[in-house]
Amino acid sequence: MNQLLSKVGRYEFLAEPFHCDITYRLFIGHLGNHMLNAADFHSNDRGYGMSYLNPIHKTWVLSRLAIEMEEIPMAYDKFFVETWIEDAMKYFTGRNFSILGTDERVYGYGRSVWAMIDTETRQPTDILSVRDGLIKEYIETEKDCPIRKSSRVKINENTPLIRTISTGYSDVDINGHINSVKYIEHILDLWDIDWYREYRPQRFEIAYVAEAHCGDRLCFYREQEQQNEYNIRITKLVQDEEKEEVEVCRSKIKFIRN
Amino acid sequence: MNQLLSKVGRYEFLAEPFHCDITYRLFIGHLGNHMLNAADFHSNDRGYGMSYLNPIHKTWVLSRLAIEMEEIPMAYDKFFVETWIEDAMKYFTGRNFSILGTDERVYGYGRSVWAMIDTETRQPTDILSVRDGLIKEYIETEKDCPIRKSSRVKINENTPLIRTISTGYSDVDINGHINSVKYIEHILDLWDIDWYREYRPQRFEIAYVAEAHCGDRLCFYREQEQQNEYNIRITKLVQDEEKEEVEVCRSKIKFIRN
Repeated sequence: MNQLLSKVGRYEFLAEPFHCDITYRLFIGHLGNHMLNAADFHSNDRGYGMSYLNPIHKTWVLSRLAIEMEEIPMAYDKFFVETWIEDAMKYFTGRNFSILGTDERVYGYGRSVWAMIDTETRQPTDILSVRDGLIKEYIETEKDCPIRKSSRVKINENTPLIRTISTGYSDVDINGHINSVKYIEHILDLWDIDWYREYRPQRFEIAYVAEAHCGDRLCFYREQEQQNEYNIRITKLVQDEEKEEVEVCRSKIKFIRN
Repeated sequence: MNQLLSKVGRYEFLAEPFHCDITYRLFIGHLGNHMLNAADFHSNDRGYGMSYLNPIHKTWVLSRLAIEMEEIPMAYDKFFVETWIEDAMKYFTGRNFSILGTDERVYGYGRSVWAMIDTETRQPTDILSVRDGLIKEYIETEKDCPIRKSSRVKINENTPLIRTISTGYSDVDINGHINSVKYIEHILDLWDIDWYREYRPQRFEIAYVAEAHCGDRLCFYREQEQQNEYNIRITKLVQDEEKEEVEVCRSKIKFIRN
């Protein structure tokens, strides 16, 4: 295997104009997509990515993602996403990100936690059993990621339901699940356009609790924790059996003024 | 100006895995986005793009788009979008596309019609007045685009309303209008996931009639014209003044079996 590859991967992206919001800043969902792309390229290049895993009926599943941005790339900005493995245990691995300008200025950082599952049983599988723990060869301990880890989002029982949406064809990824990035879009859509003229997310964090499928209805609950800080819970109502709500995501967002 | 640039521009894209549907094919919306990117790069590079127009308070507005695909790029496929100007008149210009594999095989073609508007008055402006008609230097007459032009989509008066949706933050582009690509996503979401396990769009055509804004409600009307061929009309109900529906788009889709 490609033993000589560096531990940190660096990938260039463009803040495409049609991926930017009314303030000309890249949508956080599209930024998240580029981070997932970087993770995918990095792990494929090093031999423990989807292209190796899928034929042996395993896949990576994103469990948590946190993004903290001092600044957000603007339309037409080129930028780099760097990514590296921070740690790898039997059932979870931590992958960090830095988002840099082409002039090396730091836009922000990301942290993510991934599990590996068996695509037939949908059960967690041992990450370190893949290629004799190859991923451990790539753990980077020197590089700093100066943002807090995600913590469990606490949310009150009586948090109000503020929106229910149906999911459709465009929400679903190649595995038939609601796309991780689409949840980010749906969450940010809970605020109206006038809000975004004044505020942007400074820290966005999401924990994926269960998978939802096309046709499931998603229910969004939101509470304000502090000024400009919100907690969100998403539950699903499974299509054709609308009895019980099952939690699918929790998210926490802190906004700052533009 | 860059007089030496070729008339046809060619840009490489990747069918990103998170931009692909359950059949591993690139979503038509994301393909459309790459075509719009190619158009944007091509016109900017040649001096009549947004980066020249915006400071002089003009912009390109997409009026029609038709995409016809024999095959659709699959997850991780690299592909080229070629684009060129077919004709340029005072108020409209025709821009064509071909979508090619890295092995030069043809996936499909596209045709589009663009107007130019004054961003202050929102009125059409003379395309040929920009840089003394520079765009005419780039008209390509040799290259073939073997698909039909878009024609006006005829749709019956009594076509049934099948869905109404609210638009939000993620639907809106840097100009504050509903993003052209988001209409494509919303239209394709009118069919459920099981449909797409069997069928894919072979020809997708859309005409943009009026602009919609964040918060407008969009109403989708659909009729079946022939087997696997559908006509769609989208109207808007303007926020806080829900009296009169105004037509914003018409679209026609022909599906083929996967």
